Amino acid sequence: MQVPMLVTHFLDRGVKLYGPKTCIVDGEKRFTYNQFNERVNRLSNALISEGVKKGDRVAYIGPNGHRILESYYGITQIGAILLCINIRLSPEEIAFILNHAGAKVVCVDWEYANLVAPVVDKLETVTHFMLFTDGHRPNGIDWPDYDTLLNEASTERPVRPEMDENDVAELFYTSGTTSRPKGVMMTHRNIYANAINYIHMLSVTDADTQLHSVPLFHVNGWGSPHGITGSGATHVIVRDFRAKQVLEAIQKERVTIGAMVPAMVTTLLNYPEAGQYDTSLWDRMIIGGAPVPITILREAQEKFGVKCYQAYGMTETCPMLTLSTLKDHMKKLPFEEQLVYRAKTGKPVFGVELRVVDEEGKDVEPNGEDVGEIIVRGNNVMKGFWNDPEETAKIIVDGWLHTGDIANIDQEGFVQIVDRGKDMIISGGENVASAEVEMAIHKFPAVMECAVVGVPDPKWGEAVKALVVLRPKMQATEKEIIDHCGTLLSKFKLPRTVDFVSELPKTGTGKILKRDLRAKFWAGQEKKIGG
Amino acid sequence: MQVPMLVTHFLDRGVKLYGPKTCIVDGEKRFTYNQFNERVNRLSNALISEGVKKGDRVAYIGPNGHRILESYYGITQIGAILLCINIRLSPEEIAFILNHAGAKVVCVDWEYANLVAPVVDKLETVTHFMLFTDGHRPNGIDWPDYDTLLNEASTERPVRPEMDENDVAELFYTSGTTSRPKGVMMTHRNIYANAINYIHMLSVTDADTQLHSVPLFHVNGWGSPHGITGSGATHVIVRDFRAKQVLEAIQKERVTIGAMVPAMVTTLLNYPEAGQYDTSLWDRMIIGGAPVPITILREAQEKFGVKCYQAYGMTETCPMLTLSTLKDHMKKLPFEEQLVYRAKTGKPVFGVELRVVDEEGKDVEPNGEDVGEIIVRGNNVMKGFWNDPEETAKIIVDGWLHTGDIANIDQEGFVQIVDRGKDMIISGGENVASAEVEMAIHKFPAVMECAVVGVPDPKWGEAVKALVVLRPKMQATEKEIIDHCGTLLSKFKLPRTVDFVSELPKTGTGKILKRDLRAKFWAGQEKKIGG
Repeated sequence: MQVPMLVTHFLDRGVKLYGPKTCIVDGEKRFTYNQFNERVNRLSNALISEGVKKGDRVAYIGPNGHRILESYYGITQIGAILLCINIRLSPEEIAFILNHAGAKVVCVDWEYANLVAPVVDKLETVTHFMLFTDGHRPNGIDWPDYDTLLNEASTERPVRPEMDENDVAELFYTSGTTSRPKGVMMTHRNIYANAINYIHMLSVTDADTQLHSVPLFHVNGWGSPHGITGSGATHVIVRDFRAKQVLEAIQKERVTIGAMVPAMVTTLLNYPEAGQYDTSLWDRMIIGGAPVPITILREAQEKFGVKCYQAYGMTETCPMLTLSTLKDHMKKLPFEEQLVYRAKTGKPVFGVELRVVDEEGKDVEPNGEDVGEIIVRGNNVMKGFWNDPEETAKIIVDGWLHTGDIANIDQEGFVQIVDRGKDMIISGGENVASAEVEMAIHKFPAVMECAVVGVPDPKWGEAVKALVVLRPKMQATEKEIIDHCGTLLSKFKLPRTVDFVSELPKTGTGKILKRDLRAKFWAGQEKKIGG
Repeated sequence: MQVPMLVTHFLDRGVKLYGPKTCIVDGEKRFTYNQFNERVNRLSNALISEGVKKGDRVAYIGPNGHRILESYYGITQIGAILLCINIRLSPEEIAFILNHAGAKVVCVDWEYANLVAPVVDKLETVTHFMLFTDGHRPNGIDWPDYDTLLNEASTERPVRPEMDENDVAELFYTSGTTSRPKGVMMTHRNIYANAINYIHMLSVTDADTQLHSVPLFHVNGWGSPHGITGSGATHVIVRDFRAKQVLEAIQKERVTIGAMVPAMVTTLLNYPEAGQYDTSLWDRMIIGGAPVPITILREAQEKFGVKCYQAYGMTETCPMLTLSTLKDHMKKLPFEEQLVYRAKTGKPVFGVELRVVDEEGKDVEPNGEDVGEIIVRGNNVMKGFWNDPEETAKIIVDGWLHTGDIANIDQEGFVQIVDRGKDMIISGGENVASAEVEMAIHKFPAVMECAVVGVPDPKWGEAVKALVVLRPKMQATEKEIIDHCGTLLSKFKLPRTVDFVSELPKTGTGKILKRDLRAKFWAGQEKKIGG
């Protein structure tokens, strides 16, 4: 028997086995699995009333909230496709995406209505808007209220169309550092495979409560929500990431699992009252989006009791490729040695085949030193880019997705990314992995954040430059930072210059925008580096 | 991207991430993942030398041992189909199966060579035999030694043919209580889905060590081996089930997971020296094959520290359908109330849709009382019976597999089977579920095993009869048993008669052969009950 692996199974299982249990805590709002299911059905029926049919695209533009969880099923159970949009994009970029994807309906939060309103006239396919008002109605916008439409719709489950597991369930446009945004097609099977991995790799059960602090519009908050729902666990959502609110939520809702980018953890660690919260149930946290310094892993475990693991993935892989959960024998190592493994990019999750290959496509030696590009295959890898076979053919070659990320792999099968997206500095003919330099700088106590980029140099082609944000009330000099790096790195990898800045430009998901950092140094120069 | 879900992924993942780790402990023999992989490849290459091609059937006849684990991958990685045969069958039954399945090669253990030797002339398709000798060579049998053939073959991985996940990987003939044996076709996808469930539902990691005590020729030892291998955990195998050897293995190999039929647990509990073994790491045990009395769950936890859960499934479902692991809120109940849930048939595992339906196909009320037939669908449900579309169409109807098992379902979604395979006694027009009566009798302290069947009765059509095996050195009278049941059951369910016997006839997998029990009572009678 072959039963299509559809994302709706996660909803159905949660509802059937955990109906009266709390499914979502979103600020003051709470929904049981049964209540959640009713809202999902209402959303489906409201969309049907608007003429949405199988294969149509429905956009979601908003911050984290219960409505995005509703959209995962309310849109897909009628065969439509969820189009999640990054709220850090400009109105023009959003208009491009809505047109490119051919969105029929746009669901948008009141706070972000101004991302769409100025470009409404440019939208070629949108027929309906639904506004999350929550008591706020922006001036001059008369789109119908989402909740009013839902309240008018039936709670009955609509007839679900016949679906194939390889049908597209969700569409996420990548931030497009090198070209115009590309729409990543995630099939039901892709999301299903990733959700099963999430459950398995983190041993998720209905005893768990997950805090969603990374944006859910970003590869489904790293693929966690479907697994959480299917396991009968509880979702806790914070609209914005503020240390006080996050720590309060962890304490009050008895959070057990979290997922954050390093900058979020740093924010919590530097919050003066951090130690006053009871985080004793907070058991495990995935850190992704950027390499995580060991100091953060150590401090988070000491301060909050939470065991942190590095995860790695990308929008195109739904996303999880690796996780640095320890092998059994590693758990018997001294704490500091455990941290070394936990800070690595990790080992491939179930169902993912991962290779690190040289330029001729041969596997590099698993010695933790030789580097190559990570290529992967698995059922969590996207179907391709929406209406873009050319770009798809560039990244999926001979059945393997080429990540562009440069890594080594050790004898344990643990991968360590040394640079993401070919973000390699070539200085005097030597390759310098900026991530390696960043890791070294992070070990300097006064450093809170840093980024390393290549800048033009008349002699060496490129020179290594560090941009550093210091911790509050702490100090450092350029010489101190460079001397510190000299104790850890080869000479050619040392930063030539260090700029102290008050903040680093970031994407909506907390990734440092190296492109923007480089831009000002390369303005007017012929050669450009990376994206 | 769609990557076929093949059983070889479990091998490949285990080998890649856990190469030097102990994979199998089989008596005195130990194999690392790398050594195991080499033997798997040798087996494949030996089979290729014998002319085995994609789609060919290779039979395995033997007790538990490392070679059946080898066969899971050595046979399937070259696209051939593993045909596992129950060693409790007669030579004639085995000849029927080998011919029906069209087996090309037969791998057989020295101790069971006499199951095949007498019928060799009747085999229509077998071209090669391979004998597991282990130093024993039965008289008059000159089949080549399996290990000699392997040692002559290369350790290189053979070229794997292109495979579809819906190709058949394994073929298991059901014991056939009602008709001739039927060959259950398990596809790669079926086994993959079940293995993922096993890992997930039991939170299996590489820290686990599983004792295989149920026969692996029986639905892959309940579907555990692939999940164990893919997780980098360790297999511990005992050739036969003897209390001393089993307890020694649990202590010495630091077993964490076990799977047993109730009779095996009873054997361990009644072993006089049971308390002298260190079973402190033994954490969880699946009990299946028959309903498990609460007393066994309680005693096993008190004596061995192991938490027991009831599992339910059938060959046709690869097998796991339900497991009685507790929901989070149930773990806060008093111990005795937890046991009530753990002794239930359990809640559906991930990916399995399960319904309890009345004769009109409507779901019964989830009140824990109304009964109906369990019907299921999921990717772990077989493709069908080998070369038998008629029998397939009888059991898979409108996309649902009809188990024939009668159950109720409660508000928690926990199923309770009241009788397996329509094993219902109809007495005076009232339905009596024999399992319910058996559960009651099991609560009488002196009872070790029992079976309840319907026997002819001139007045009531059928009468309830109990057959009881008493614990060593304990006594009971018929009246005591009936009076005891009177405190637990309605009058019409009480046994009219109780026979004390020294043992009960069982299948190779420990299931009580009710058919045989009934036969002597129904000889010469017109009406027959059950199978």
